[in-house]
Amino acid sequence: MLHFTFLGTSSGVPTLTRNVSALAVRNSKNKDWILVDAGEGTQHRIQQAKLSLQTLIAICITHVHGDHCYGLIGLLASAGMNARTAPLTIIAPKEIQQWIEVTAQLTDLHLPYPLNFIDVNDATQIQQLTDELSIQAHPLSHRVPSFAFSIIAQYTQKKLDTQALIQLGVPKGKAWGDLQQGQDIQFNEQILTATDFIQIQMQRVHAIVGGDNDQPELLAHACEDAQLLIHESTYTQAILDKVGQGPMHSSAKMVAKFAQQQNLSNLILTHFSPRHQDSLGQQAITEEFREFYQGNFYLAHDFDQFSLNETGQLSKIVASS
Amino acid sequence: MLHFTFLGTSSGVPTLTRNVSALAVRNSKNKDWILVDAGEGTQHRIQQAKLSLQTLIAICITHVHGDHCYGLIGLLASAGMNARTAPLTIIAPKEIQQWIEVTAQLTDLHLPYPLNFIDVNDATQIQQLTDELSIQAHPLSHRVPSFAFSIIAQYTQKKLDTQALIQLGVPKGKAWGDLQQGQDIQFNEQILTATDFIQIQMQRVHAIVGGDNDQPELLAHACEDAQLLIHESTYTQAILDKVGQGPMHSSAKMVAKFAQQQNLSNLILTHFSPRHQDSLGQQAITEEFREFYQGNFYLAHDFDQFSLNETGQLSKIVASS
Repeated sequence: MLHFTFLGTSSGVPTLTRNVSALAVRNSKNKDWILVDAGEGTQHRIQQAKLSLQTLIAICITHVHGDHCYGLIGLLASAGMNARTAPLTIIAPKEIQQWIEVTAQLTDLHLPYPLNFIDVNDATQIQQLTDELSIQAHPLSHRVPSFAFSIIAQYTQKKLDTQALIQLGVPKGKAWGDLQQGQDIQFNEQILTATDFIQIQMQRVHAIVGGDNDQPELLAHACEDAQLLIHESTYTQAILDKVGQGPMHSSAKMVAKFAQQQNLSNLILTHFSPRHQDSLGQQAITEEFREFYQGNFYLAHDFDQFSLNETGQLSKIVASS
Repeated sequence: MLHFTFLGTSSGVPTLTRNVSALAVRNSKNKDWILVDAGEGTQHRIQQAKLSLQTLIAICITHVHGDHCYGLIGLLASAGMNARTAPLTIIAPKEIQQWIEVTAQLTDLHLPYPLNFIDVNDATQIQQLTDELSIQAHPLSHRVPSFAFSIIAQYTQKKLDTQALIQLGVPKGKAWGDLQQGQDIQFNEQILTATDFIQIQMQRVHAIVGGDNDQPELLAHACEDAQLLIHESTYTQAILDKVGQGPMHSSAKMVAKFAQQQNLSNLILTHFSPRHQDSLGQQAITEEFREFYQGNFYLAHDFDQFSLNETGQLSKIVASS
């Protein structure tokens, strides 16, 4: 299962109720988690959400705009002051690596753990982060290069072929246990090879977390295999028309039409303009989205938590207070 | 009067109750205010404290460590997104200017208002910010160059010498009013020159806000004229002895002894190590400070507000909730 905690859902500037972009994605089988974007104040949100910087395995930055990255270096510094020693992977535009290096030099910052930088352009090839978690970047369309990230949890389950063993008359107990452990056994003067009796089952959970983007359809291919898309919905269409194409963001309508056409089963919308953050503004986004999309969707608030299981079911498990 | 709002009182890392360093100092005669330090999340604290980035006239950065400056650029960006056009003065180590310029370039940041950089080394000469507010930097001792800032409010009051006018028999009314406005008048075929009848009264409020520092005595000269010193007190002496001299911070005892020797009338302590932030830790700092200092002092919490008036009286006007 993948577990999501929204740490910031405001676009551009923080407001009194929402911080700028950050999202924690955790492998529910252990404590490994990935941070997607790190707007200023993300480390504060991480503390409040009771996540640990010690178990963070990777940070993905969708693009270089400040509301998605200005919290990155403070977070790295605090992880260092909290005595982190494990390497940390950063998948980001190469400007982010330069920025960290220059900032460390100018501000006397010395991290006690290594950073493993991966240029986001190289991450368009799948990057295996742990035995279970992998990531792949997909280019989007924004004022600067921007990316979405596929986060994939792949779980392997070894199941003993008990039916075959029963047919052969192999008694339950030690024999079954040895085979399950991968140990060949002798039975009726025959050697039974463990691998012949172990079935490997693969389960896969795939979510896509988008950065700023004014062309949701760029994710058409990536979404074919995804059970959840988390995408910006900065404005309603009416406000986007008023603001104009300059900022290069998506309206609720644009994302909804794409999701409907793709037959996507789950959507979470985020990155709302401050003007859409009160209840009327949220209602306007909701109504517009519902008009063009018939699936399951949520508008994220800071501290909302969701889970996505192996059957592709999305549940809201904790609502922001 | 000067008005102080503490926006961050934790050293090194933010905690659930205290943010990293930032302090707002406002001229109570208008809305002009100065920010001293800008740890990450300062713009969030500014919103919460209902201060406006539009009336901010200067930012002083005491030194380049991240817990004193990582919130600077997000704050500048947000002021820009809130349509600030007025120039903003930044008094800081020159590395901060480089950092802002490189960051702007790497993160596609375009501020719609000019920054007026003053190298903190040049600010050891008094810098006049407005008619009433001026600033002067004083070198401290820390792992990197660190500075304290004298913030001085100087108020001029023009008073009519009414006694002299009565003696001359000049009647109240238009004549007095004209003189008060600086206009010479004719009286009994004599020209009365306005400047002869106007007394200029000067009132001065002077507070010193220190950066990280392990030698409070470096402020001896600057403090001769000051009514308030705001200084770090990161540890008690016992903890400082355990931590060692490496971090180059002050203990409560060090600051208290200096303040007592200087006969300083008002102190506010801040920049507490996370281990000194619970009630026991605060009590330990308080008791140690009281042992060595007989004057008026406070331990600052985030959102505490104080005023310092023209007679040098310090009052706590709002306590953090």
